[in-house]
Amino acid sequence: MSEHLYAGVDLGGTNLRAALADAHGETLFEASERTLAHQGPAAVIARIGDLVERLANQAGRRPTAVGIGVPGFVDAAAGVTRFLPNLPTQWRDVPLAAPLSERLMAPVRILNDCRVATLGELTFGHGRSVQSLAYISIGTGVGGGVVIDGKLRLGSLGAAGELGHQTVAPDGPLCGCGNRGCLEAVASGSAIVAEAIRLMLSGQSPGLHERCGGDVSHMTPAVIAAAVADRDAGALRLLDRLVEHLGIGAANVVTMFHPELIVIGGGLSILGESLLAPLRLKLLERVRMFPPHDVRIEISALGESAGLRGAVALAMRAPT
Amino acid sequence: MSEHLYAGVDLGGTNLRAALADAHGETLFEASERTLAHQGPAAVIARIGDLVERLANQAGRRPTAVGIGVPGFVDAAAGVTRFLPNLPTQWRDVPLAAPLSERLMAPVRILNDCRVATLGELTFGHGRSVQSLAYISIGTGVGGGVVIDGKLRLGSLGAAGELGHQTVAPDGPLCGCGNRGCLEAVASGSAIVAEAIRLMLSGQSPGLHERCGGDVSHMTPAVIAAAVADRDAGALRLLDRLVEHLGIGAANVVTMFHPELIVIGGGLSILGESLLAPLRLKLLERVRMFPPHDVRIEISALGESAGLRGAVALAMRAPT
Repeated sequence: MSEHLYAGVDLGGTNLRAALADAHGETLFEASERTLAHQGPAAVIARIGDLVERLANQAGRRPTAVGIGVPGFVDAAAGVTRFLPNLPTQWRDVPLAAPLSERLMAPVRILNDCRVATLGELTFGHGRSVQSLAYISIGTGVGGGVVIDGKLRLGSLGAAGELGHQTVAPDGPLCGCGNRGCLEAVASGSAIVAEAIRLMLSGQSPGLHERCGGDVSHMTPAVIAAAVADRDAGALRLLDRLVEHLGIGAANVVTMFHPELIVIGGGLSILGESLLAPLRLKLLERVRMFPPHDVRIEISALGESAGLRGAVALAMRAPT
Repeated sequence: MSEHLYAGVDLGGTNLRAALADAHGETLFEASERTLAHQGPAAVIARIGDLVERLANQAGRRPTAVGIGVPGFVDAAAGVTRFLPNLPTQWRDVPLAAPLSERLMAPVRILNDCRVATLGELTFGHGRSVQSLAYISIGTGVGGGVVIDGKLRLGSLGAAGELGHQTVAPDGPLCGCGNRGCLEAVASGSAIVAEAIRLMLSGQSPGLHERCGGDVSHMTPAVIAAAVADRDAGALRLLDRLVEHLGIGAANVVTMFHPELIVIGGGLSILGESLLAPLRLKLLERVRMFPPHDVRIEISALGESAGLRGAVALAMRAPT
């Protein structure tokens, strides 16, 4: 009797990644290629099928179930995409699970990518030791997921856990979602990089300027993290603002859920302890109704793999 | 064989209310008196015992279990008060459950009063038809509670669900809790009444002035509701501000939990549909990541009894 195999797919706006894992979720094989989303859903769905089959051929067996993380709002129950803000509009209302399930002859579950990453953290990361956690991914956007009493809580549409779309600056900038002052609008990787560019161009951060050679295209979270580590005044001001906004967001999560653990993932998590230390202080400042000292804040244990490992975890939860 | 009886106690800063209910939670007898909290915990604990025994005598039987709603932060597991902002400081760290359990010869459970009211709404109110709800009580303060997948979610300290202490105005006024710009600081009954008084005294609301005869001591939520119903310009501006802040709070709850239902309780719920109608629109404005059309917003079905009925529901959940 052969053991179960599980396939996880991370469908990103730029890259498509897949992993094949054993019955315990340990990765056996991994592969990736460009998503090329502009070619349309049919081409990408075929590419996902090819990728998973290639891994299945390496293993000599088909996966028992497949999980896919999708960047946006999906109807998880129907297996259909709804609104994927970073993909072309032809990606609206696309049946994703059914055609892949038919081709791969296995159940296919889809879910928002950040909820999937939360599942990854719960199953394989820091979440293994707790019953409740909030995951905040700070990448191109700000996404999230919430685990309460051991279970990822999704709401009726799989949309619960959109921690990046809480309002933290009521009169702040417009968010991509249409609301004003979302955490995502002021604290996403994109927002922070844009603000870093502004500081550099206006001469307020010699440290950032030096590291980029004045070239805006060289500005990345890694550059910002290096400038912060060197105590560049402009970069530290940028960090302050990030902590202010992220602190409100994290404090709101704590007053509402009081999770044991907050996990920070996504590209900006490269800031590491220089982000976590002031964030912990901000939490004490903003949560006063009860002592939040027992709330741990950590950088994701899975890093860039959170989404892919989470997709495997999603597959493992599929009815087989 | 006699059926179970359950006692519920609502320990308020001003009044002490108790109810004795049958095995289905239906109220059999009710009584209330002044709390007189300044007399200290021992006197009030004795008064609670007297009140419950009086009801037990009326019924001719003792309650099987007792539930008590407490205004503040309590250690529910230990049955001990921690921080009750509206009672004198001698109420800190008072063992409440143990002495009453001994006297009444029944298990006694204590819990924050707003979480208790949430339990009331879940068990006897609008919550009977849903699996998830957020309760927001707008009274002297702003409290709340959260039900997900059919269960009141409390966190490790019974403190989850503090919906009134999310930050909705980052640079706003100081809150009683010590944070700045909590929903409670800008949208509590106290904050709204104070703002109504300001509008009246500065001549911006003839409607409020007329109804109070210019006497600040006559300003109440009922007066404000009447002025809103008459389309008084000042009162409508007040309502706008309330909706703006409460809308952010409700939208944050929806993006994080996506509950089926939001229930508004507390004294300001007297505003009824004139509050709910614009609040529903504000929710559509602030929640853009997914369609929140399926989130119902209702006024509490239990009104002022939510706390007392909830205390009975708490007793019904006690291990007997």
